[in-house]
Amino acid sequence: MSVMDLYRDYCLPWMQSGKESDIVISSRVRLARNFSRLPFPNRADFTQLAAVQEMAASIFSDLESACNEEFDAIGMDALTPLERSVLVEKQLISRNLIKKPQYRSVYVSRDRRCSVMVNEEDHLRIQCMAAGLDLAAPFALASRVDDAVEAKLDIAFDEKMGYLTSCPTNLGTGLRASVLLHLPGLVFTRNMNNIINISQQLGLSVRGMYGEGTETVGNVFQVSNQLTLGFTEQGILDNLTSAVKEIIENERRARKALMLYTKDRIEDIVWRAFGTLKYARFIGETEVLQLLSKVRLGIDLGLINEAMPEQYPELILASRPSYLQNLMNNENMSKNEIDRKRAEMVRRILAGESAGQE
Amino acid sequence: MSVMDLYRDYCLPWMQSGKESDIVISSRVRLARNFSRLPFPNRADFTQLAAVQEMAASIFSDLESACNEEFDAIGMDALTPLERSVLVEKQLISRNLIKKPQYRSVYVSRDRRCSVMVNEEDHLRIQCMAAGLDLAAPFALASRVDDAVEAKLDIAFDEKMGYLTSCPTNLGTGLRASVLLHLPGLVFTRNMNNIINISQQLGLSVRGMYGEGTETVGNVFQVSNQLTLGFTEQGILDNLTSAVKEIIENERRARKALMLYTKDRIEDIVWRAFGTLKYARFIGETEVLQLLSKVRLGIDLGLINEAMPEQYPELILASRPSYLQNLMNNENMSKNEIDRKRAEMVRRILAGESAGQE
Repeated sequence: MSVMDLYRDYCLPWMQSGKESDIVISSRVRLARNFSRLPFPNRADFTQLAAVQEMAASIFSDLESACNEEFDAIGMDALTPLERSVLVEKQLISRNLIKKPQYRSVYVSRDRRCSVMVNEEDHLRIQCMAAGLDLAAPFALASRVDDAVEAKLDIAFDEKMGYLTSCPTNLGTGLRASVLLHLPGLVFTRNMNNIINISQQLGLSVRGMYGEGTETVGNVFQVSNQLTLGFTEQGILDNLTSAVKEIIENERRARKALMLYTKDRIEDIVWRAFGTLKYARFIGETEVLQLLSKVRLGIDLGLINEAMPEQYPELILASRPSYLQNLMNNENMSKNEIDRKRAEMVRRILAGESAGQE
Repeated sequence: MSVMDLYRDYCLPWMQSGKESDIVISSRVRLARNFSRLPFPNRADFTQLAAVQEMAASIFSDLESACNEEFDAIGMDALTPLERSVLVEKQLISRNLIKKPQYRSVYVSRDRRCSVMVNEEDHLRIQCMAAGLDLAAPFALASRVDDAVEAKLDIAFDEKMGYLTSCPTNLGTGLRASVLLHLPGLVFTRNMNNIINISQQLGLSVRGMYGEGTETVGNVFQVSNQLTLGFTEQGILDNLTSAVKEIIENERRARKALMLYTKDRIEDIVWRAFGTLKYARFIGETEVLQLLSKVRLGIDLGLINEAMPEQYPELILASRPSYLQNLMNNENMSKNEIDRKRAEMVRRILAGESAGQE
């Protein structure tokens, strides 16, 4: 998978189906690390930012060994704004990294399971992903990367506080684990607020697809640990995993209730959504995510047989504005043109054509 | 075509495409006639109503000769309420005829072009239909039937007033001519009120599909002459025909404007409607007519190629509640069950299956 593919391909290679993949889209683990004796990026000048980049570059081959994968090194200032947005849409980097692109970069493994952001909020943000519910594998991978980093470079660590980070919420383990869940059953049965409240009591936060400050659209929620200080890594992962399993159970129960009491209505709702996706000529981003959620639910409930679960992540990504603009090599597309292209891509994917290959 | 087919068939045999059939669904001519020396039905007792029925029965074979077609004689009191409603939905009788079914009947030609209601508002209501814009043929047919009646029986006629009728608005010729038009272009471009005003100034009335007191749904309008006194039959037909041609021109212009200025949006609207019709599991009567109007517009504008104009009258009829209940031999179907059956029939017709044959 080349760097060009990174922008043009509709799907990341690790996005095959994983555990509980009828409800869990993906799992992610992120470690925040900072080099000793250098200020955090938001307080660093260009010379210091450049020094951080150089230190990161010095361990590039160690990253490759740790992951047993080749990496691409991508400087943010070398990318067009559109290419940067595509990386955000694919969740390989954060929106934060591209606010000031100078001296910001990312290393991405060819299988796209691992990315290391340089000079985001912290000097290094090691991020690993897996499909379905699986925090163990991404954590193991992130730890191997962390070990490789710490074997060569001095990392800011305090015996009492643990890893030092730019934002106090990351102090301690520097670990943030998150799981992306599709919860239409809980939304339709009006149980989602309850789940959010309980999750908060368990020290977890429930947010939109792109994390902090993003809205939930299409019944996709990101559940992650709020605290990192005073917990072991394993404790954080276990706590999140068991909470997510509880949410999954609730979602399954809600879906069963929907099928038991309102199967006819649900059938109508999911098929109408399918019909709109299959034939609309213009679809906005919010609408497409809402429709996709219904269709995905229909697939999972065995109501819709004209689409496959594998098409869901493709469809979600192919509906993203920057991805579409990049595909058309046109960063000046109007909302109308994007909505039209989005509808076309959705129709093509549902017709079984590969959308990414123009 | 047997009497049973009359209730079960989704389509009337004369509903092939006629002139201007991209806009005009059908044309209808009705003559009101009353026998001399018998009170109008609403003032007649059972003996007098029975006498009217006997007189009508005495000329049954003359009707057949005049139309060169066999007729079915159908007494309203012999029908189930459902069967009566199906005849109304197929526009072979009026709602008025079935309010008091005793001593009310209809003679219907096997090709369903001609029906003669007995003891509706007037003793006889001779009604002839054609597809598309064509008032001449139904008027010629109705006149032959009228001649056959008047050759044998005394009809109430006043030298000064013309034909005497129960309602003064029918005095004179007793002729009501009406044309059923599909006018989505004028509705979408917000010109329909204008058309209605002008039509009224021309002595015409514009109403819903089932005439007086019915709402317009799915952009289908019935245009008919309001006055019959002081005009010749030909004058009435010419006036209506030329007004309808004017409306058709306006509709064509409106459609051209839609295609010129908002083609993309119209394309989206008509395909979304198609997608919903093709996949919905429940559809209400009003919604189906609104969706069908959009799909029909899409077909007429050459935007939709997955459905044919011939399917439009089928779809309209197959969406009627009594027709659906009768098809299922179940007059106690809930609204839910009807909505489900309607959606199923629509899907089958769009899939190219013949809906009427269970």
